[in-house]
Amino acid sequence: MAKARAEIQSGEDRLIARYFKPLARHPGAFGLEDDAAILSPPAGHEVVLKTDAIVGGMHFFPNDPAAAVARKALRVNLSDLAAKGAKPAGFLLSLILPKSVSGKWIADFARGLGADAERYNCPLMGGDTDRTNGPVTISIAAFGTLPAGTMVRRSGAKVGDRVVVSGTIGDAALGLKLRQAPAIAKHWNLDAAMRKHLLGRYLVPEPRNALAEALRAHASAAMDVSDGLAGDLAKLCRASGVAAEINAARVPLSPAARKALLAGGKLIETILTGGDDYEIVATVAPSKVLSLMAAARAAGVAFCEIGVVRPGQGAQFRTPSGKALSFARPSFSHF
Amino acid sequence: MAKARAEIQSGEDRLIARYFKPLARHPGAFGLEDDAAILSPPAGHEVVLKTDAIVGGMHFFPNDPAAAVARKALRVNLSDLAAKGAKPAGFLLSLILPKSVSGKWIADFARGLGADAERYNCPLMGGDTDRTNGPVTISIAAFGTLPAGTMVRRSGAKVGDRVVVSGTIGDAALGLKLRQAPAIAKHWNLDAAMRKHLLGRYLVPEPRNALAEALRAHASAAMDVSDGLAGDLAKLCRASGVAAEINAARVPLSPAARKALLAGGKLIETILTGGDDYEIVATVAPSKVLSLMAAARAAGVAFCEIGVVRPGQGAQFRTPSGKALSFARPSFSHF
Repeated sequence: MAKARAEIQSGEDRLIARYFKPLARHPGAFGLEDDAAILSPPAGHEVVLKTDAIVGGMHFFPNDPAAAVARKALRVNLSDLAAKGAKPAGFLLSLILPKSVSGKWIADFARGLGADAERYNCPLMGGDTDRTNGPVTISIAAFGTLPAGTMVRRSGAKVGDRVVVSGTIGDAALGLKLRQAPAIAKHWNLDAAMRKHLLGRYLVPEPRNALAEALRAHASAAMDVSDGLAGDLAKLCRASGVAAEINAARVPLSPAARKALLAGGKLIETILTGGDDYEIVATVAPSKVLSLMAAARAAGVAFCEIGVVRPGQGAQFRTPSGKALSFARPSFSHF
Repeated sequence: MAKARAEIQSGEDRLIARYFKPLARHPGAFGLEDDAAILSPPAGHEVVLKTDAIVGGMHFFPNDPAAAVARKALRVNLSDLAAKGAKPAGFLLSLILPKSVSGKWIADFARGLGADAERYNCPLMGGDTDRTNGPVTISIAAFGTLPAGTMVRRSGAKVGDRVVVSGTIGDAALGLKLRQAPAIAKHWNLDAAMRKHLLGRYLVPEPRNALAEALRAHASAAMDVSDGLAGDLAKLCRASGVAAEINAARVPLSPAARKALLAGGKLIETILTGGDDYEIVATVAPSKVLSLMAAARAAGVAFCEIGVVRPGQGAQFRTPSGKALSFARPSFSHF
């Protein structure tokens, strides 16, 4: 319980003023010079609240670039706002650092965070810095707004709806395997660009905030895919009281994931259950599928139809020949 | 980067359903069964946002009772909402646990958290559980509401205003010293009740949420005292562009703190700069002092007038004879 102390303008004050105040452009952040921030949703709108933390050695590697760590910390939260159809409004940061972290690391972290705060129009509104004897730990609470009553829930899927998923699935889980055992790239017959693609998808997710409006306009249910498509879709089905039947061959894969899959091994399970995708899985009435896909394309993201909602429970993935896939562990969990 | 995995209803899902779902009584929490929560401030109101984390070995002792740790984690955030004049609306929890933490610890933590969520009418709205190789780490983001434009800022103090402080100052800092070196109680001539009082004030703060409305109605500026009265008041002065002159003899002390102070040593610095008070320091126009004190008394909390706002900068503490106190380290900082 050692307590470091400092002069009137403490070390913490200086750290915040130097690195984080430039990111606090929201008027309700008061330049980080008050105890709390103010968020005023537009009339008729609600605030969507989400928190997610990332921990060194668990969600990122201790030697990941600080800017990438910052971007991952913010983006895993932005991904949830996207899936719920909310427009980012701002975020609070808890930054918990061991003494070993350098000033350069903090500067790089703030730079990465600032770049994404600007890119996603989601300014820093406040925060807290603390010491730990453990690993770098970053907890972010992110806020979005949307017209009252329009949040896209997990629980709205209806029998007959189509199941769609954004982007490509499995890249980050394969990227993590590559990171843990780089020699596997040769075994998977990956070229340098494919290797880089998979590693990059693990290092920094690409949240689909461009899809938020299209989801609100079309989807009956949605969630972001963070713990694996199979397990997350099963959660959506449970919340909606339905089942989903998925054609595994239609799950969208990147060229790199396709090549790794062809090399054999049991990578289909890694792809469908490994997690860290930060894509969006949604259900949509058949009459709205084409319109959703057009809106997504206009927003620069592909949606792919992969299956259908049925009565029952669970998410069943089948091969083109109709064989049901079974997974040892359908969903990622730390516990 | 070991990844534990589990069946469809993962260990994390079960942990949340068992211990935390019962705390999520806010309709916008959706029983913790969606990806995000919804907060709808009343018409004409704004949302006040605050985050603060506590870390094992830094803000609490590893052997502190889990229920007390939970209450501290929530209360340090509630204290900021109180100082800003906001009514608690709900909170998000990031709970980051090493593997060594038992199911009983988590159950006790949830019980303590639930008791305070109910006591302060501040329900759990969502959260995130993660593993760490480091200490127990809890980050909470708390939300309050208030009529638009009425947040009590740090920056509103005016020359001539009186400086007031709630409750008693220094107890928690003395409690920490006692916790670190229990034999000191004898040296300070404390009886068992006094010892217990100081230890308790460090273990679990008493946020002054009962004062929120009185502050909005009367105070020109306010903040909660978490890093020591001397340093925090200096911050308020800096934000307001003024100075404060404080009669150190009028700073309210508990009988235990008074007795410890009489025993000698340099405890006045510990009392005025040690932090963890979670009291409120505010400035108020002279014409409103009596009305503020009456409102505070009606809310069950004492406010004490300790000084006056002057032109200049800094917070100056003087003895009754007029001697200025100087502190080696006026404000607590982890950095």
